Amino acid sequence: MRYGGIEAGGTKWVCAVAEQPGQPLEIVRFPTTAPAETVARAARFFTEQGPIDVLGVGAFGPVDIHRDSPTWGTITTTPKPGWGDTDLTGALTSALGVPIALDTDVNAAALGEWRWGAATGLDTFFYITVGTGIGGGAVTGGRILHGLLHPEFGHMRIPHDRARDPFDGICPYHGDCLEGLASGESIRRRWGRPGPELSDPAVWELEAEYLALALVNVICMLSPQRIIIGGGVAKQSALLPLARRRVRELLAGYLRAPELTDPDAAEGYIVVPRLGDRAGVIGAIQLAYEAQEAAASSSGLSGRAGG
Amino acid sequence: MRYGGIEAGGTKWVCAVAEQPGQPLEIVRFPTTAPAETVARAARFFTEQGPIDVLGVGAFGPVDIHRDSPTWGTITTTPKPGWGDTDLTGALTSALGVPIALDTDVNAAALGEWRWGAATGLDTFFYITVGTGIGGGAVTGGRILHGLLHPEFGHMRIPHDRARDPFDGICPYHGDCLEGLASGESIRRRWGRPGPELSDPAVWELEAEYLALALVNVICMLSPQRIIIGGGVAKQSALLPLARRRVRELLAGYLRAPELTDPDAAEGYIVVPRLGDRAGVIGAIQLAYEAQEAAASSSGLSGRAGG
Repeated sequence: MRYGGIEAGGTKWVCAVAEQPGQPLEIVRFPTTAPAETVARAARFFTEQGPIDVLGVGAFGPVDIHRDSPTWGTITTTPKPGWGDTDLTGALTSALGVPIALDTDVNAAALGEWRWGAATGLDTFFYITVGTGIGGGAVTGGRILHGLLHPEFGHMRIPHDRARDPFDGICPYHGDCLEGLASGESIRRRWGRPGPELSDPAVWELEAEYLALALVNVICMLSPQRIIIGGGVAKQSALLPLARRRVRELLAGYLRAPELTDPDAAEGYIVVPRLGDRAGVIGAIQLAYEAQEAAASSSGLSGRAGG
Repeated sequence: MRYGGIEAGGTKWVCAVAEQPGQPLEIVRFPTTAPAETVARAARFFTEQGPIDVLGVGAFGPVDIHRDSPTWGTITTTPKPGWGDTDLTGALTSALGVPIALDTDVNAAALGEWRWGAATGLDTFFYITVGTGIGGGAVTGGRILHGLLHPEFGHMRIPHDRARDPFDGICPYHGDCLEGLASGESIRRRWGRPGPELSDPAVWELEAEYLALALVNVICMLSPQRIIIGGGVAKQSALLPLARRRVRELLAGYLRAPELTDPDAAEGYIVVPRLGDRAGVIGAIQLAYEAQEAAASSSGLSGRAGG
């Protein structure tokens, strides 16, 4: 079997092929441009690499991931220009003609880290990406969390102290939701330059504040055994130590667990992805692999064009 | 088999016996006073009702529900006077000598509603109680959510507009966390009288605002298929319609599902418990029943004194 995987992010796509899960043979990255162009570029990569049998896709959202829905595989209300109501899996099926297993990009990354990275052996954890946008995926009780739609972690509401940060936030739907205040794009627009060019400690203290408020809410709602934070913004070396400290301060000893009260234990609690930038695409391959394995024992996998 | 159930809440305890899950035969309610006195009162009820074989307990928290922990069954950092570091299951085992199945009060209520109430057949939903305090429990992917500790929903942070509501909040750990701003006790202290005596629409509009912010965060993090809101405060008939409307306004059409965009569908999405005030105790009986069923096929159930 040859597996294909696509981390179909809102900023970039990462494509890979593999013959074994966890071991991508070839990886390519390119920017997310218009839908048809981006899909064509992915299709060209897979064609060049030789045929694949099954494709796993982790897509940016909101995306319809309910297999029995008539709009399965469609990216719906994204503010990303040109991508609203895009039939992603339809386009990929037309281009590649293989069955597709689909989840969100962050759920795919969570799956990658669960099987091969920083979350192996855990039962309940949360994966966050803080990049151009903010997203989150979860495994709870040993299963990827779906529910009514799928988590849209970036759009939670957190306290916004306008005396400290008068910036209105950039989310076109919600203004100062988490993504509106703390995404890489919000950093760029608040401070006038992208994060990697900003060394003022106030920038990263504010970012850590918002991130810590969001993490406290994850902890209060999901009680994860670990939190993994990926994405470009999380690469700022100052950020995670500041965020860990603020989480501890904000929880104020109310929840008794070394992970939440002891600075050393917190270093193993709020962590970066062990798979780094490859978490999403390795997770996408894993989606393909696990769907194929499920299909081998029943008939759980079928492409829109028939699997 | 005779099952006992206790909803061991921070304000009141509800005890019941049953010979069939879902069908409590006798129910008693009494206020939560000092630990020894409250446990003795529960023990007296079960003794009067005739012997039980197994006891299910849904306890207020934070409580250690990890069976393999040396402090299993202990209520830990509660600000409730006299209850900090109380070995609840130890006391109940001493008094009753039967095996105990334990979860949080809100997880027990969620279990009750899942098997017998407003959440039957669902895979992923959230149960909230808004009473003296605020708590939440969840079922995700067909399993009760536990994780590192257990959800402590009441302590999430939400936006607090001090121009509209200068009240500081009452949580001794966090001040203006959700519970600090929106619990029944916070209503009583902000307005000087308990909720049932307050008819000013501004009271319930503010309460609906906080509740809606919390619900938006649940929806963004867990994507539940339904949200059940119990507890005394939620009985205010004005509250749920206001909260449903604010959830819809706050989400602003970003998440496409009738439950989140259509007022009629929302009435079936954010609902009261079908079991009413009995959700917790019916859930506690269910804990006992399911632990007993599991024990019948393996040896999954054992009291601290031996089961």
